[in-house]
Amino acid sequence: MEQYRAFSTQEAIEYAGSLPGVFDAGETLSAEEIGDGNLNLVFRIRSDGSGRSVIVKQALPYVRVVGGGWPLSLDRARIESAALAKAAEVCPELVPQVYSFNQELALIVMEDLSDHIVLRKGLIQGKRYERLAEDLGTYMARTLFATSDLYLEPQAKKQLQVEFCNPELCKITEDLVFTHPYMDAETNNIDEAIRPFVARFLWSDTALKREVALLKHAFLTRGEALVHGDLHTGSVMVTAASTKVIDPEFAYYGPMGFDVGAMLANLLLNYVAQAGHRRDADECSAYRAYLLETVEQLWHQFATQLRLLHASQTSEEMAKTEGFFEIYLRNILQDSIGFAGCKMIRRIVGLAHVEDIDSISDKAIKTAAQELALRIGRELIMERQRFDSIEAVSAVVKRTEGA
Amino acid sequence: MEQYRAFSTQEAIEYAGSLPGVFDAGETLSAEEIGDGNLNLVFRIRSDGSGRSVIVKQALPYVRVVGGGWPLSLDRARIESAALAKAAEVCPELVPQVYSFNQELALIVMEDLSDHIVLRKGLIQGKRYERLAEDLGTYMARTLFATSDLYLEPQAKKQLQVEFCNPELCKITEDLVFTHPYMDAETNNIDEAIRPFVARFLWSDTALKREVALLKHAFLTRGEALVHGDLHTGSVMVTAASTKVIDPEFAYYGPMGFDVGAMLANLLLNYVAQAGHRRDADECSAYRAYLLETVEQLWHQFATQLRLLHASQTSEEMAKTEGFFEIYLRNILQDSIGFAGCKMIRRIVGLAHVEDIDSISDKAIKTAAQELALRIGRELIMERQRFDSIEAVSAVVKRTEGA
Repeated sequence: MEQYRAFSTQEAIEYAGSLPGVFDAGETLSAEEIGDGNLNLVFRIRSDGSGRSVIVKQALPYVRVVGGGWPLSLDRARIESAALAKAAEVCPELVPQVYSFNQELALIVMEDLSDHIVLRKGLIQGKRYERLAEDLGTYMARTLFATSDLYLEPQAKKQLQVEFCNPELCKITEDLVFTHPYMDAETNNIDEAIRPFVARFLWSDTALKREVALLKHAFLTRGEALVHGDLHTGSVMVTAASTKVIDPEFAYYGPMGFDVGAMLANLLLNYVAQAGHRRDADECSAYRAYLLETVEQLWHQFATQLRLLHASQTSEEMAKTEGFFEIYLRNILQDSIGFAGCKMIRRIVGLAHVEDIDSISDKAIKTAAQELALRIGRELIMERQRFDSIEAVSAVVKRTEGA
Repeated sequence: MEQYRAFSTQEAIEYAGSLPGVFDAGETLSAEEIGDGNLNLVFRIRSDGSGRSVIVKQALPYVRVVGGGWPLSLDRARIESAALAKAAEVCPELVPQVYSFNQELALIVMEDLSDHIVLRKGLIQGKRYERLAEDLGTYMARTLFATSDLYLEPQAKKQLQVEFCNPELCKITEDLVFTHPYMDAETNNIDEAIRPFVARFLWSDTALKREVALLKHAFLTRGEALVHGDLHTGSVMVTAASTKVIDPEFAYYGPMGFDVGAMLANLLLNYVAQAGHRRDADECSAYRAYLLETVEQLWHQFATQLRLLHASQTSEEMAKTEGFFEIYLRNILQDSIGFAGCKMIRRIVGLAHVEDIDSISDKAIKTAAQELALRIGRELIMERQRFDSIEAVSAVVKRTEGA
């Protein structure tokens, strides 16, 4: 058994070179570290001869944050590797291939996606991805259904739920998404320009905090499916022809709507941010229309595919009852919208911001975008139980924008 | 490490005699087997000299049922022992004391409650228990709160949830409570006299099955607290001055309302059965009034104590938000009422009946009681989301009785 140590570039090369079936013997390999080093080391190892490459991703035993850090379980590498394997069972084309996992070293060797770009960056640049809604809808429907009580025998599901018990990473979400943004917490990261608005608009709003408390309670208690747990636009890599979901280290058994909501929130954050990136009004409004269309298509793809899976593969007898699925789906929609609201707010007030908004250079536009994100987030949370279609999201966005 | 073997009476005596601190050396011990032997061996071991006695309970590796049996994990003895220990942390006076647990032998040595009687038998005899509502309300409030996300740090809760993963016993509930009664299943146990009514009233009712499917989904997915899992009137031992909750082998992380609902259902089953036991109309109606009062007091005791615990000991920051607890409590009420309906129906149609009804000698009265139980059960399930007070249960009972 190997002892854990954080790899140097040279160690990463040697490790990848020694794996059977990855590189040929005698290939000359080079490496670069491409991660930000906050949670993980990420090396790209490339053969100078064949041009083949792989990613070596190693978890670090701490989170590096502004002003310090805190220890964090290496077990998340096991979770990530196992979650990628579960996804590969139902949609191998939508996740990177895992070549090797080493538990002691907390290290995954996987497919290099350097021909892809991070979806968030593509959206900031105003790119359109025709496959995106269908691919992400497929990813969510298949991974969530296949790990749910609709499909799995309950005993198999309970075993998986134990395997994916992920208390340390859940705790990060519990604190940074569902708690700290609603109080003047040290971990918050608030632009001074909007601090008075945040104090008035979030911290004084008891009704909002109550609804967030209920959503947090759902996150804490409802083990519906193996969720990705961090499904934002930075966890998706794209080309025109391919979509790959990466980084499921936050995976755990939670509410299905948590994944759907994370993706909706990040598309809407990009929508809000476009005021700072597409300075031509027509161009901005056309791209925003594309984003709202993507929000709607994403949901419809998810819903359609989940419905098909339910109709053809549900094993849970009672869930086959006529009309059950419609209620089940509406509950996921309402959860998704509520979680989307929480995810929008945390990206403005909480520790981790999004580049979409933080990269806006005009300060007034940036502040307006932040306020708009908070307003939309709040509306989604407060109104979620009245939603019976995804189209109502666009209506909320437009109404809030016009207010 | 000892190898599992089902104990003989003599082995049970020797085992109890050898435990330090239970009996004095040299005491002459005798034993009787007092269990029904369907799931467990239960021996009472008594010292002829001192009169002291203990219970030795050993899990059997199968369930014995009419016409055969099926294997069942011995792990349930660990679950039972650990659940009794958890309860003893918060209400030691309301559970039997555990003296010893042996995992290999699946065996618990615990306090003998032979001065108590089973609550179900007391209720069939028309006895009243002044402490009952308060004691059971206390038991439920304390055990559920202490294992919930309101009180526990989320990481400690998740560990407990793994420790109490109980797939085999949950499966029994999933099948026998939430599935088989709603179809013409082999495990059902239906008096021929009500079979046509069952086919018409349950099996043809899609709206009812849909609601049961949603309650089953809650049972499968919602890990709110460590529930007893089988909290009927046969799992409670009483004297005028003492209440003890026993047999938590079905314990797992589930919805709080599942325990509350089980107790409500069994009180209401006794209510329905009184037509066959108190043949004097005034006496019957007075006892029924006592039972409905107990239903209401039980809820109020539970709610009051849960509210106090929440106000004084909640660690979950967001759950402290004004108004959160009222919604949380209303959700538990509505769940409890829905689960109560399921529990009533399964005791008429499903494998395991209750003595309250099965012991009615007059066939016409018994059949009428069974139909009334099904009608009340259905009303509770279908109307649960309109309930905002426990008093509405009495209204449903009286309305259904009069219909």
